[in-house]
Amino acid sequence: MINKTGNIQTFLGCDAAYEDAKIVLFGVPYDSTTTNRPGTRFAPAAMRSESYGLETFSPYQNADLENVTVYDAGELEVPFGRPEPMLEAVENAVAEILEDDKIPLMIGGEHLITLGAVRACAAKYPDLHIIHFDAHTDLREEYLGEELSHSTVMRHCLRLVDASKIYQFGIRSGTKEEFQLARTLGEKPVPQDVPIYLTLDLDVLDPSALPGTGTPEAGGWSFLDLLETLLSMKNLNIIGCDIMELAPNYDHSGISTATACKILRELILILTAKEK
Amino acid sequence: MINKTGNIQTFLGCDAAYEDAKIVLFGVPYDSTTTNRPGTRFAPAAMRSESYGLETFSPYQNADLENVTVYDAGELEVPFGRPEPMLEAVENAVAEILEDDKIPLMIGGEHLITLGAVRACAAKYPDLHIIHFDAHTDLREEYLGEELSHSTVMRHCLRLVDASKIYQFGIRSGTKEEFQLARTLGEKPVPQDVPIYLTLDLDVLDPSALPGTGTPEAGGWSFLDLLETLLSMKNLNIIGCDIMELAPNYDHSGISTATACKILRELILILTAKEK
Amino acid sequence: MINKTGNIQTFLGCDAAYEDAKIVLFGVPYDSTTTNRPGTRFAPAAMRSESYGLETFSPYQNADLENVTVYDAGELEVPFGRPEPMLEAVENAVAEILEDDKIPLMIGGEHLITLGAVRACAAKYPDLHIIHFDAHTDLREEYLGEELSHSTVMRHCLRLVDASKIYQFGIRSGTKEEFQLARTLGEKPVPQDVPIYLTLDLDVLDPSALPGTGTPEAGGWSFLDLLETLLSMKNLNIIGCDIMELAPNYDHSGISTATACKILRELILILTAKEK
Amino acid sequence: MINKTGNIQTFLGCDAAYEDAKIVLFGVPYDSTTTNRPGTRFAPAAMRSESYGLETFSPYQNADLENVTVYDAGELEVPFGRPEPMLEAVENAVAEILEDDKIPLMIGGEHLITLGAVRACAAKYPDLHIIHFDAHTDLREEYLGEELSHSTVMRHCLRLVDASKIYQFGIRSGTKEEFQLARTLGEKPVPQDVPIYLTLDLDVLDPSALPGTGTPEAGGWSFLDLLETLLSMKNLNIIGCDIMELAPNYDHSGISTATACKILRELILILTAKEK
Amino acid sequence: MINKTGNIQTFLGCDAAYEDAKIVLFGVPYDSTTTNRPGTRFAPAAMRSESYGLETFSPYQNADLENVTVYDAGELEVPFGRPEPMLEAVENAVAEILEDDKIPLMIGGEHLITLGAVRACAAKYPDLHIIHFDAHTDLREEYLGEELSHSTVMRHCLRLVDASKIYQFGIRSGTKEEFQLARTLGEKPVPQDVPIYLTLDLDVLDPSALPGTGTPEAGGWSFLDLLETLLSMKNLNIIGCDIMELAPNYDHSGISTATACKILRELILILTAKEK
Amino acid sequence: MINKTGNIQTFLGCDAAYEDAKIVLFGVPYDSTTTNRPGTRFAPAAMRSESYGLETFSPYQNADLENVTVYDAGELEVPFGRPEPMLEAVENAVAEILEDDKIPLMIGGEHLITLGAVRACAAKYPDLHIIHFDAHTDLREEYLGEELSHSTVMRHCLRLVDASKIYQFGIRSGTKEEFQLARTLGEKPVPQDVPIYLTLDLDVLDPSALPGTGTPEAGGWSFLDLLETLLSMKNLNIIGCDIMELAPNYDHSGISTATACKILRELILILTAKEK
Repeated sequence: MINKTGNIQTFLGCDAAYEDAKIVLFGVPYDSTTTNRPGTRFAPAAMRSESYGLETFSPYQNADLENVTVYDAGELEVPFGRPEPMLEAVENAVAEILEDDKIPLMIGGEHLITLGAVRACAAKYPDLHIIHFDAHTDLREEYLGEELSHSTVMRHCLRLVDASKIYQFGIRSGTKEEFQLARTLGEKPVPQDVPIYLTLDLDVLDPSALPGTGTPEAGGWSFLDLLETLLSMKNLNIIGCDIMELAPNYDHSGISTATACKILRELILILTAKEK
Repeated sequence: MINKTGNIQTFLGCDAAYEDAKIVLFGVPYDSTTTNRPGTRFAPAAMRSESYGLETFSPYQNADLENVTVYDAGELEVPFGRPEPMLEAVENAVAEILEDDKIPLMIGGEHLITLGAVRACAAKYPDLHIIHFDAHTDLREEYLGEELSHSTVMRHCLRLVDASKIYQFGIRSGTKEEFQLARTLGEKPVPQDVPIYLTLDLDVLDPSALPGTGTPEAGGWSFLDLLETLLSMKNLNIIGCDIMELAPNYDHSGISTATACKILRELILILTAKEK
Repeated sequence: MINKTGNIQTFLGCDAAYEDAKIVLFGVPYDSTTTNRPGTRFAPAAMRSESYGLETFSPYQNADLENVTVYDAGELEVPFGRPEPMLEAVENAVAEILEDDKIPLMIGGEHLITLGAVRACAAKYPDLHIIHFDAHTDLREEYLGEELSHSTVMRHCLRLVDASKIYQFGIRSGTKEEFQLARTLGEKPVPQDVPIYLTLDLDVLDPSALPGTGTPEAGGWSFLDLLETLLSMKNLNIIGCDIMELAPNYDHSGISTATACKILRELILILTAKEK
Repeated sequence: MINKTGNIQTFLGCDAAYEDAKIVLFGVPYDSTTTNRPGTRFAPAAMRSESYGLETFSPYQNADLENVTVYDAGELEVPFGRPEPMLEAVENAVAEILEDDKIPLMIGGEHLITLGAVRACAAKYPDLHIIHFDAHTDLREEYLGEELSHSTVMRHCLRLVDASKIYQFGIRSGTKEEFQLARTLGEKPVPQDVPIYLTLDLDVLDPSALPGTGTPEAGGWSFLDLLETLLSMKNLNIIGCDIMELAPNYDHSGISTATACKILRELILILTAKEK
Repeated sequence: MINKTGNIQTFLGCDAAYEDAKIVLFGVPYDSTTTNRPGTRFAPAAMRSESYGLETFSPYQNADLENVTVYDAGELEVPFGRPEPMLEAVENAVAEILEDDKIPLMIGGEHLITLGAVRACAAKYPDLHIIHFDAHTDLREEYLGEELSHSTVMRHCLRLVDASKIYQFGIRSGTKEEFQLARTLGEKPVPQDVPIYLTLDLDVLDPSALPGTGTPEAGGWSFLDLLETLLSMKNLNIIGCDIMELAPNYDHSGISTATACKILRELILILTAKEK
Repeated sequence: MINKTGNIQTFLGCDAAYEDAKIVLFGVPYDSTTTNRPGTRFAPAAMRSESYGLETFSPYQNADLENVTVYDAGELEVPFGRPEPMLEAVENAVAEILEDDKIPLMIGGEHLITLGAVRACAAKYPDLHIIHFDAHTDLREEYLGEELSHSTVMRHCLRLVDASKIYQFGIRSGTKEEFQLARTLGEKPVPQDVPIYLTLDLDVLDPSALPGTGTPEAGGWSFLDLLETLLSMKNLNIIGCDIMELAPNYDHSGISTATACKILRELILILTAKEK
């Protein structure tokens, strides 16, 4: 039978209406400040398309995407090149979602995009804390004179959120100065009940597990390492979340996109675990 | 601004409502009888996604997709394996579209799918003629004992449409017996005013122009050869149409999918040229 | 010197005559019911060709392929599309090998093929037990209405072999219903002396170790995890065996095929370990 | 013998000292405003590296790179993201080369970079004419609100150079408005003796000849078509030149980069043909 | 039914016994002197495997591989590294085939291998002529001091066969000195009745038609250009033949291997056309 | 500003002058005796180019490439084919570096190249010890009759260095005879203060961590396993070192080259750790 009323290709199982949704998923196909290999702009579309190779059920959490209400808003339209219009569009979108008492769940795109989301979250939650998974500190002051770059994103966050409220996981690359600065960041464990923005740069995974990213960095986590850490955060008060830096075209085998989809499924189930 | 009402990722510019549409586009992601390299199931999704690299305007026809009304119905759901359920679903879908006085425009998938569409068209139009672009005659009786195969599709059509009403273009591969049988087919030019189903196996193009197909066959047409022939058919009475056998994963450069999208744009504009 | 008498490109070291052979190796290039990414049809040929990058000697077992007698029967000819002719051909071939008191060792192709082999084994061995390595339970009732599918193969086996005699390893994906059903399966350890069919879906390995498969599933085993488990089964009474679901074209680096070859070498040495 | 004094990996045969050089070659690894597939940043390095598969001798021109004096200045350092710092750096570099009475020969990077070079050339040569090879008109007013984009570059040039002095070759894609605007451009043939900036977007070639580009557009030129046209321009007064939009990572076969290198060899020999 | 007597994976349709064969096909998997990108060692195996995507019937010659008698001898075993043992093995194999009044048909491997075959042919046929299809003259004296290299092969042939008896086709690359030397070669047309060795470097084709080769050179022939020239040689007295320099791994789309197989089919039919 | 004085594209941070350098880095682009998949010739250039995705700072050693003095001498020019000229060139280069009291650090290329370096080191240091990381024993006597092959390199070293002074790490493949011979090699731990040549065949890593190598061998080390072992050797007296067998073209994701670069960074910091 031909579908005559229009359909939407959403991420697997994320077919709730906006009004009913607890979580609002959206993609930001922007990668213009990427310093190494660009291509994260293709991640949101690739993840939607590949998600149908996944099951909706997670044996790790004994939970199913079919029981959660997620609205997939598609891609945010942003121009390439200068980052400001993109940051503004992201900030506005996240602010709107937060205002409607929903959890924004963003698919990048490059890591600089996170700054837009953090701006909106910090505006609503003065006590915002940030959990940051990454291979790289992203604490540079500038890159070739440019202050708005995917490698400076956490430095900008430091102006919005106190250093003691930022928690980094999986870091294994940076300049000497960045590592010194990183020592001033928050000491784990992450406190419960505070409002948390969780940003996940997928290159925290080892390149063997996720080759499709702009700056693969050996010595990283396995999928199970990451899963275990994420599951341990199930009871935290995560008010916003993103999953960044998948560059699907560098991995013709497709395992990077498939793995990113599986992580996103687990993230969605973690975000909704508390209410159940 | 977050889109709150649901969207649809259609093929470029094909965003009409079903009721208003002159043409109904749909994909059939099936490739189970492919004898050489499978993977045409991925073509409809790849073409939708890649179509946004195209302009809606065709300088060849001085016409624009923005001025045509095409409804994109998404993918037909068909199981893999045995072909009969797929053929039945395709026949039903095409019959429904024809009944609503619209032109079915199908994206394969493998060439056997065409049989479902031809069944529906021949049922409505007893005088149906077929224009067949292909590198291969597709006139085999069977393949390893299996009569329903992408390499036998035109043999099945011969039971629905008289040989003299089938016109082949671009053929350069087949068995000796197939070439003998091909001599009984229609003599060109194709007559005007008769109802025509146009089936386009993209491997009619040379492998240099379209490497992403299951059985690439050297010595084929360039894009401009094909375009010129299609444009010469602008005044024919095409009542149904398909574009088959793109296997996007075999061409990492993406030029096969981009070229298929451009051909589809031209086909849509040809199908609607008459009315203007 | 030109070879004037004909040769055979066998899997590395598998050059015994049929009569002398303890093990009969054969490929089944069929993947028509694959629900995600097709291409396992290319596995047997790819493995034969790549096996020459391996040594015949296994330092893990201190044993050498040169000391075993394996006959490589090449590929079984099966049509694409409907699964029944394939299942019948596989059942007949396995029955014939079993009748000649040899061990069938099958290279897939998709996992549904295993059903043909299990039919033949269960016919000969009423007390047949099954060891099943996989990422997926493969216990679905149907897929889009189709009951014969690679994702339903173990459900069909359940009709031939009692649930308590099926042992699953490495499972990490399925529907909620499948996981419930899986709880009724056999409790380890696997008993000695009973006749065992061992079926190995290579996606039990982590995608980092074997990216070239149709449905890569993060969180899997390393090669050494799998090897250790297989070596622990050296004393079991394995009367038939298969290695399924390698899709070599998705991994241009070739490590998937190389790893599959190494596993096959170890499997052959395990199958013949008892007699020595 | 170990080289103890430092060397430079230049483009094939371009090893003159700056002072002696007639032509100054440099790369601009920038692609941040690319609207479709990014990756042209990798072109200059890829071309240098691959050029060693070429001969220095051109049988088409009976001339040899060994007899010309080209200085290869390496890559211009530019940040990613906002385009203005890049445009300024390019303008300054080209102005400096022109001031030293040398011909700038730029390897992109995306097409917007050309604007920086045209600014410098138009400043020195008030009567500047532009020869533009491209598949796309690049005459858009803006793209998603952004005026500085690779798809708007010729629109910006129109503000520096009168429409009648711009000559387009190979165009086959654009909006309706762009094609209307294109009708106001210069009529061929291009006049002799006027100062000319020649900008070559490699996507003027057919995707079969050059798959490695961001927006492949079927129906383009063959290598020999392009070569013939370039050779016909041997007597023109080309005072600056560029070769843009190679995106080497999309073409794993390497033919795109090899072909771009061959075109660059021919361009260098054309630029120096007059003086001999 | 399991094949119990051993089989051979031959090139499509080349399953005659040695004694009955008119043509003896064999591969030489050697590429150690390749100056640019190695990998032609994989060509013979890839061509055998891919040939099954072809039909045995040629519509260009109205002839069928099923009616010719070709023996496929598999691969010649040669070590990698120094070229002399390889050249000796090739010379011996070709001499043996010639002695048995059969036509040697060799699949490379790199072009230096041809020297071994020419040695054997020139020894038997003092009036040997050579037809040489190539993009490159292959007339270098040495490469980095090494005289035995794939880029010097025709220079070595000049010592065995007079320059006036060598006919080059498709050349478009070489040093100035090589082109000067090339002017002393034979003037076309090639005389009838003289014994001819035909050597075909596949890079005579344009990179768009055959990207999978070590040194792709733009501006080459289409498949149909080559086919037409080969068909014009149907009545020549070709006593030996080769098809060299396919490097299948550089072309993941597989069109290079498929095209090479089609050329080989046509070559076989040309070699046997006279007798019919 | 245009760079007017010539530059060199060195490995990241290796920009010291020869006279000032403690370490001399050079590449040897040779792979002619490779028995499986060739292509290591491309490793040195690929590593230089990709190294700019790395940071100069190592958090593992709290040390920075900016504080070490390494001269990058570029590539040694060696012909392809016979190995002797290459071995001689390598021996001479290493001898010269040793004579100038610097540490040679060689990037392969295939493993046979190491023999040239070991010859020079053994000539200067009669008590030379060898640390050998590899998946393969490399102790074969010959390969297809050829004694100089990448799979025989350690056998040749045994003639220069006593078996008790060779220490192997990570070995998991070889013939039965090679494993027997390997039992005569040195017992760990490696003694301090003796002069050591460290040769690192990158296939010691698991194929998941480094797919881009000629003979990937499952069951290997992770990056962190290797790093830990290398760090434990920080106080040894390493007088020469190499990193071999990266074949970058087999890994389109680029993680193999990125990982090799990171290992090289750590190796350089280890080589200079003692002096600080």
